Amino acid sequence: MAPGSIGIVSPQTMQFDEPIELKSGAQIDEYSLVYETYGELNSDRSNAILICHALNAAHHVAGRHADNPYDVGWWDNMVGPGKAVDTNRFFVIGVNNLGGCHGSTGPSSINPKTGKPWGGDFPVVTVEDWVQAQARFASRLGIEQFAAVMGGSLGAMQALQWSIDQPERLRNALVIAAAPNLSAQNIAFNEAARTAITSDPEFHDGHYYEHGVVPRRGLRIARMIGHITYLSDDTMDDRFGRELREKVLNFDFGVDFQIESYLRYQADKFADTFDANTYLRITKLLDYFDPAQAYGGDLSRALKNATADFLVVSFTSDWRFSPLRSKEIVKSLVDNRHNVSYAEIEEPHGHDAFLLDDVRYHNLVRSYLERVAI
Amino acid sequence: MAPGSIGIVSPQTMQFDEPIELKSGAQIDEYSLVYETYGELNSDRSNAILICHALNAAHHVAGRHADNPYDVGWWDNMVGPGKAVDTNRFFVIGVNNLGGCHGSTGPSSINPKTGKPWGGDFPVVTVEDWVQAQARFASRLGIEQFAAVMGGSLGAMQALQWSIDQPERLRNALVIAAAPNLSAQNIAFNEAARTAITSDPEFHDGHYYEHGVVPRRGLRIARMIGHITYLSDDTMDDRFGRELREKVLNFDFGVDFQIESYLRYQADKFADTFDANTYLRITKLLDYFDPAQAYGGDLSRALKNATADFLVVSFTSDWRFSPLRSKEIVKSLVDNRHNVSYAEIEEPHGHDAFLLDDVRYHNLVRSYLERVAI
Repeated sequence: MAPGSIGIVSPQTMQFDEPIELKSGAQIDEYSLVYETYGELNSDRSNAILICHALNAAHHVAGRHADNPYDVGWWDNMVGPGKAVDTNRFFVIGVNNLGGCHGSTGPSSINPKTGKPWGGDFPVVTVEDWVQAQARFASRLGIEQFAAVMGGSLGAMQALQWSIDQPERLRNALVIAAAPNLSAQNIAFNEAARTAITSDPEFHDGHYYEHGVVPRRGLRIARMIGHITYLSDDTMDDRFGRELREKVLNFDFGVDFQIESYLRYQADKFADTFDANTYLRITKLLDYFDPAQAYGGDLSRALKNATADFLVVSFTSDWRFSPLRSKEIVKSLVDNRHNVSYAEIEEPHGHDAFLLDDVRYHNLVRSYLERVAI
Repeated sequence: MAPGSIGIVSPQTMQFDEPIELKSGAQIDEYSLVYETYGELNSDRSNAILICHALNAAHHVAGRHADNPYDVGWWDNMVGPGKAVDTNRFFVIGVNNLGGCHGSTGPSSINPKTGKPWGGDFPVVTVEDWVQAQARFASRLGIEQFAAVMGGSLGAMQALQWSIDQPERLRNALVIAAAPNLSAQNIAFNEAARTAITSDPEFHDGHYYEHGVVPRRGLRIARMIGHITYLSDDTMDDRFGRELREKVLNFDFGVDFQIESYLRYQADKFADTFDANTYLRITKLLDYFDPAQAYGGDLSRALKNATADFLVVSFTSDWRFSPLRSKEIVKSLVDNRHNVSYAEIEEPHGHDAFLLDDVRYHNLVRSYLERVAI
């Protein structure tokens, strides 16, 4: 293994037999969550960091799986021995959220009431529901308070929600490439992606498992739409520009430009590994995220009782959740005289920058976490 | 009729029996073009303005049709007696382009060789092909030289191509909300839209007419994607924000937010009136547009032989074809010491601003055209 890698890791499963009440009013009677941990929990149980995943990821944050050495965790550049999130010092946890499609209970799981997959009957979950499930999960691990809860994009939204819903249970929140809610444009892109899935004839109202099919066409289009919004226009121009795949225009509807080939590849890869019902639910969960909403739209009031210290990070080229959106969060924290550090990183790669190996960005996270007492 | 309106107008059809050779190498043996005219051609035939349409429009530029008084032309706020493009002074022409779906020969027309609709066999046409067909059309009308060729977005690309391919046949080119070619991001959005159409099971390789179906699901998604890119994030936030349709979250996959309702409405309206094969071809035509390409990527060389005067207009909030892209055109014109006026209009409405009734914008076009000798 490369120096700094956590090495081979194995997921574990935790079963919950107590029902969980969801914000929608629905209830899930029993469920399981799949998770991974890296590093050692100290005797004070004070060095735990929860890493929350975004739309397209799961519990496999760092290291590799023994059965597939190419299956590197999605934030392996950030998490490991000696890395910005240093597993020599911290006990780091990744958990696949409720409703996911990587092992935790979700739409493809068997609904114990029917003996068949939940499918379209799996409830719409919210960020609040996820935080509730994660808090219960943490208690079972014996972690009363996290040194930090962190994430990028939707992961950061969970960290923010933790600071509101469970203020005593985290000392730090790292909120990276986030927004306090989705804009109309963000929702519109999600709605176009959902329409692609729900109008696929193989969707069957979400009960496609029973039909032995998947709404693959819809999922491919959804991924194309999403993927475009993760990258900046400049990054796409730098990487692909108007480069042709075969040096000539084909005058048909196959691939002319490299960017088309790349999009098709990303779409295929995603459709092979992600569940359409989960995609629908997570985009809806994103649309619904709006902690200020219960406070008349006043995010400062929503964050009033937070006690964590905050690091908020944005990337200049992120047009999905622009720095202006992060500044809304910062302003609300400052309004409450909470401790907050804010960094806007000049970076060309768009929203996906939070996943990339940028030395200034990683050093920032490293420095912040070095100051976190354990 | 309201003062300033051209009133009731009627489309006409012109039949062409001479084959047209396309850039692809394909040939169309015979075809017809539908067009409308407003105002009177003067005795010198020197007062004609050709208005080129963009992706979603056609020949019906101004006025109303007798059989449907709500069917107002797409640029009626710009074109009419006393308006910025003054039909008391100019003879204005709108023509549905080859491959269109509003009356001109296109994929839904009968292919004389087979007696069946062209469908998927209709060739991919280019902006150069359109200009060639328009030039032939103009000759048949007895117009040797246009006072101006103008348009917004793809319409502006045609005006630019006219100045390159037919330099002696226009005295002015009005190039509004354009780009000298599509960026990788622009192409990516088009590819996602095309994938929605071509992967619709009712597409049948473009031969859906014979199956008595239309790939409506795909066309709806394509329109959603396109529509999002026509509006600015700010406009969407101002018009819709996070407003709910029914004051509560529904926790399902119906409409929660007004923006979703709006998108669905736009998608339905478009799918009722536009042909999927035409949509595929016009997005491909947009991707292919790149006049600099034949000159080693040097737009200045491409524009070297242009003789027209130019008005180039961009809108600050247009993220589809940003002002930076218009400035590339301006720079290439300046490199050649061509006469060019450039205006960047501070406007919040995104790419669609070129269609809207903005007094500064319209006064700019008015002033420019008042100086055009006829």
